[in-house]
Amino acid sequence: MSEAKKLAAEKAIQYVEDNMIVGVGTGSTVAYFIDALAAWKDRIQGAVSSSEQSTARLQAHGIDVIDLNAAGPLSLYVDGADECDPDKCLIKGGGAALTREKIIAEASERFICIVDPSKQVPVLGKFPLPVEVIPMARSLVARKLLELTGGQPVWRDGVITDNGNVILDIHNLAITDPVAMERAINQIPGVVSVGLFARRPADVVIVGGQPPLVL
Amino acid sequence: MSEAKKLAAEKAIQYVEDNMIVGVGTGSTVAYFIDALAAWKDRIQGAVSSSEQSTARLQAHGIDVIDLNAAGPLSLYVDGADECDPDKCLIKGGGAALTREKIIAEASERFICIVDPSKQVPVLGKFPLPVEVIPMARSLVARKLLELTGGQPVWRDGVITDNGNVILDIHNLAITDPVAMERAINQIPGVVSVGLFARRPADVVIVGGQPPLVL
Repeated sequence: MSEAKKLAAEKAIQYVEDNMIVGVGTGSTVAYFIDALAAWKDRIQGAVSSSEQSTARLQAHGIDVIDLNAAGPLSLYVDGADECDPDKCLIKGGGAALTREKIIAEASERFICIVDPSKQVPVLGKFPLPVEVIPMARSLVARKLLELTGGQPVWRDGVITDNGNVILDIHNLAITDPVAMERAINQIPGVVSVGLFARRPADVVIVGGQPPLVL
Repeated sequence: MSEAKKLAAEKAIQYVEDNMIVGVGTGSTVAYFIDALAAWKDRIQGAVSSSEQSTARLQAHGIDVIDLNAAGPLSLYVDGADECDPDKCLIKGGGAALTREKIIAEASERFICIVDPSKQVPVLGKFPLPVEVIPMARSLVARKLLELTGGQPVWRDGVITDNGNVILDIHNLAITDPVAMERAINQIPGVVSVGLFARRPADVVIVGGQPPLVL
């Protein structure tokens, strides 16, 4: 699986252009992308990072990490996913970085998603759907998510996000209308973001393999 | 004006019942409510507070402050507003406590809003609409709010919310469809909450005066 991740990540490098500020996600597949991006460090302006973890890896390679407020709109964002459906809608947030990832995806013209073949599914929802929640709203949001989705929200105990919030993972979903579910969950007070990327799906999905598949 | 605030706050006490956990908002009108609630401190279980400021005042009166996750659904929430329209839709968040206020309003069966007459408006939007935003998304959200609302988002410089976020205030709005605007702003990645209380408006509005007006 790690070979497939590496192949997808290296294929994504072809979307990098001179002088770009590259949006960079989080996770094991993205780690390979950051390693491959190191060869470009003198040709790009730098990167906008979605997590402390990716920031550390970028900086270890000598790549400048730039604040999104200073960078403005980005032309390219590269990130992984926990699940990917045929419409390029995604579940993300297994690593708890969903809110920053969603912000960078929204700020980017093009979102390239890099995955290994195990992430491709016909219908999203086997992977528990992460929701980032203000701590005082944990029980309220769990009740509302149960009502709204019919799935089982489980508190990811002990995890605090980079924004100081908690994560509820919704189990037992079959998300047949990801856009509607994303929009509905966004309405619940106390929800900071939901790890469903459907309003703004990926533009290109690269599935690692020999050769990589570009969807 | 402070006399009108006090009259509204004291009228709201009639909704308090024995053994309740009372949801308590934030602001100068609510401060009068907390002072009036002190006489009830041995008859109620305690209060859920929407801000550090209200928590301090409640505790100074010897009223127990209870975490919302432990309290569960509340029967009563009392809070002020910056503007109130004829449908009991509100703008709140002048004091930057909008997210916690929205969470408690959502968790409560009955929301009593206490205001002085200056807060009543035919159309919301003269008071700048507060939006709580993840710091890294400040510029992105400002661009999206400008596109979406046509108003002018202004960063409330130097203010950090109790959740560690920043506030954008949208100037020059005339909010003719508050529910639609609230729903649309909730979709923008990086928005934690918007100070428009329209999906869940107040149930009762008490306008301070001699006698107070109950709407």
